Amino acid sequence: MPNIHFKPGIVCLIAIFSSLSLKGNENAALETASTLAKKAIESSLALEIATDLTTDIGPRLFGSDGEKRAVEWARKRFEEYGFDRIWTEPFPVDRGWERGLETASITHPAPQNLVITALGGSVPTPEGGIEAEIVVFKTIQALLDQPEGSLDGKIAVVTQAMEIGGYGRFSGPIRGNGPSEAAKRGAIAYLMRSAGTDNDRMAHTGATRYQAGVPRIPAAALSVPDAQQIDRLADRHKSIRIKLLLTPKELGTVTSQNLIAEITGSEKPDEIILLGAHIDSWDLGTGAIDDGAGVGVVMAASKLIRDLPHPPKRTIRVVLFGAEEIGIYGGNYYVVKHRDELSKHIIAAEADAGQGPVHTINIGVGNPLDPSLSTIRKALETLGVKAGRAKSRGGPDIVPMSNAGVPVVGLDMFTEDYFDLHHTANDTIDKIVPERINQSAAAYVTFAYLASQLGGYYRAEN
Amino acid sequence: MPNIHFKPGIVCLIAIFSSLSLKGNENAALETASTLAKKAIESSLALEIATDLTTDIGPRLFGSDGEKRAVEWARKRFEEYGFDRIWTEPFPVDRGWERGLETASITHPAPQNLVITALGGSVPTPEGGIEAEIVVFKTIQALLDQPEGSLDGKIAVVTQAMEIGGYGRFSGPIRGNGPSEAAKRGAIAYLMRSAGTDNDRMAHTGATRYQAGVPRIPAAALSVPDAQQIDRLADRHKSIRIKLLLTPKELGTVTSQNLIAEITGSEKPDEIILLGAHIDSWDLGTGAIDDGAGVGVVMAASKLIRDLPHPPKRTIRVVLFGAEEIGIYGGNYYVVKHRDELSKHIIAAEADAGQGPVHTINIGVGNPLDPSLSTIRKALETLGVKAGRAKSRGGPDIVPMSNAGVPVVGLDMFTEDYFDLHHTANDTIDKIVPERINQSAAAYVTFAYLASQLGGYYRAEN
Repeated sequence: MPNIHFKPGIVCLIAIFSSLSLKGNENAALETASTLAKKAIESSLALEIATDLTTDIGPRLFGSDGEKRAVEWARKRFEEYGFDRIWTEPFPVDRGWERGLETASITHPAPQNLVITALGGSVPTPEGGIEAEIVVFKTIQALLDQPEGSLDGKIAVVTQAMEIGGYGRFSGPIRGNGPSEAAKRGAIAYLMRSAGTDNDRMAHTGATRYQAGVPRIPAAALSVPDAQQIDRLADRHKSIRIKLLLTPKELGTVTSQNLIAEITGSEKPDEIILLGAHIDSWDLGTGAIDDGAGVGVVMAASKLIRDLPHPPKRTIRVVLFGAEEIGIYGGNYYVVKHRDELSKHIIAAEADAGQGPVHTINIGVGNPLDPSLSTIRKALETLGVKAGRAKSRGGPDIVPMSNAGVPVVGLDMFTEDYFDLHHTANDTIDKIVPERINQSAAAYVTFAYLASQLGGYYRAEN
Repeated sequence: MPNIHFKPGIVCLIAIFSSLSLKGNENAALETASTLAKKAIESSLALEIATDLTTDIGPRLFGSDGEKRAVEWARKRFEEYGFDRIWTEPFPVDRGWERGLETASITHPAPQNLVITALGGSVPTPEGGIEAEIVVFKTIQALLDQPEGSLDGKIAVVTQAMEIGGYGRFSGPIRGNGPSEAAKRGAIAYLMRSAGTDNDRMAHTGATRYQAGVPRIPAAALSVPDAQQIDRLADRHKSIRIKLLLTPKELGTVTSQNLIAEITGSEKPDEIILLGAHIDSWDLGTGAIDDGAGVGVVMAASKLIRDLPHPPKRTIRVVLFGAEEIGIYGGNYYVVKHRDELSKHIIAAEADAGQGPVHTINIGVGNPLDPSLSTIRKALETLGVKAGRAKSRGGPDIVPMSNAGVPVVGLDMFTEDYFDLHHTANDTIDKIVPERINQSAAAYVTFAYLASQLGGYYRAEN
């Protein structure tokens, strides 16, 4: 809150007056927010949008035609919605990549096919594939404990299971670093149990990142049942051999882009309430929960605000980020490109954790005392959203702006089943439950609208 | 019951005596059956066997090395169990086949990959695949209603959904006959919505059968979400094009075999109680529910009987049929090969409907008045198995012997989730729930043991 020092009597009057007027504003805003939330739920608009995106576009791998078609599709959609400004911001991605064939089989002692998928960014196997003995590690630590050269000529297989809620601490060391750690010890290829909580024969892709100066070896994820099968075989047999064929292509530098669409604020047009989601997806499914649902939620929320008879006081900016999956390229580029106006970003939220429902609001702002926050919390309560006590960093694409000082909130979603589908061919629109995504759209529109009308003093410096 | 005419007094005495002795026999048999059922549940032997088969062998396509390895594995297992006679009966299968690459994608208007799998027996596409406009039929009837030549140069796509419980009436006309019906109308390829009740991106394979004198066109199943995607696109766009590549190989005549293992009856060695399951599986998964579970159930049930201190009165014959999936080759061959001893087959049951539990016993015998049937029903009741009123034909492999007059029973299993996994890559051992398969093993051992000790007058002529 701004400091007011002089003349206690006047201060008192001003305080009463502005409190009354604040109350009036607040009530009007709350009423509108409630109407918007109701519309979000009744219209099923978020699901419609996600259905259109995943049907008419399909998969949207960074730098691909699919991603470009999706951006064109979204631009047109925002035009139809009557947004005030719509533009794209292209940026380079230095690790263009596309999937090829991917097959694997156990060749000894019990010949059978394996379900695998290349990790994003993996190099191909030599032509014709490779066939070698495997070394099975039940934890990544067991691999890290091996000395250099101990895996010479072998395929390293890490069968550690991801726990529910454990994605972050699993994907970094096992999917991101695992291949290079195996290569340092002499391995010629790397297989990991998928970062997933299902037991379907679906492999979960996701980005890996080779360490500089370490041989780049082909890397793929096994479906959970396949990893379990290898565990069982390893318990029974001394020598297991696997044949692996991966033919992905490295495409060098490709172009991705963020798409930005705004409803200009009527009173404070330079103050930005940002809603984000990412438009790219992995290539195996059609990116319904990751992140078609998020795109649906923020597009629906902003469209409903656009349809109000009066525009919001602050500017609502929707950013559909590109190239999230391969390493938050869009989110990072946004901060570089908008460095000079970040101070005008009042607050940001991203939808990138599936279909919801939203269960908790956690804040990641410098000043948690802005009174609008308690109004927002109160309004969200009616949707079943609790006030949380965790420090939020928003979503993946807005972590960079959070790091740069932009206040963010986390409208945290139910994700217990998110990693059943995440990064698999099974991530398709039929998995979205209307009630779940509709509640999410209601939560996002409630947040965005109230943030555009009230408060605004979230920064540490306030 | 045999007719007894002469000397009423003696008849009466005999009747009283044999009724007392029958009661004694029955009680002893019931007690042993109850112990066997308990062992089946506590030992988890059926699951152990199914785990070994699906792990150490894996998929077991008819005529393949996998099927042969499985038969060898089972033969050794029966030897270890101490069965009295174990032998194989090879037979030719005139439509050897193996899967190749299989890819499909929508090329217009919304390029995206499709998840498909070739139907068993499908011919390959021409080299390099085919790309053509599709015609979507929401029911098979809609396709049948088309005149000759109306699909010239098109890919026919049938998106009719299979209902729960509707496998039989769906797979025949749509998977079996669909390709030829489409070809008669000029189609150059055929796609169908999988015969499955899941919504995973898993295509369900299964045999098709080309009609004689009709062009043989490549045929594949789409996963359920992919069929839904095509339905949505067809509702939005006039022209949809699909590219399809299938490279299966036709192998001509291959050899499969039935494996037979017996515990010789101590009192009536020539009277056979037959337990069946099929050892072959489709190639996509490891054949856990279809029919590793059945193999586990009948091997466990018979092994528990083998371990009794006294052998059963009648002979217990376990038949692991080969080449079921491509058209009940093993079941049909068995009847040809054993024509002369079918009259000595007292009763037969098959386990080929997944992991269970068994919920109902239905009988398919000529004489439903054999008193042992009510004893068997009563014993099964303690396992939660109800007495049904439907006429059973056993399971697929014993339909031929049922048709030839062998009495059969159906120990009918819970199958509401069976067609979620059936014929997919997802048919793996992790899907088996110990409590379910153990109850099934308990039901089968109860039936087999009681049938070996009691009654035996099931035939119509009795």
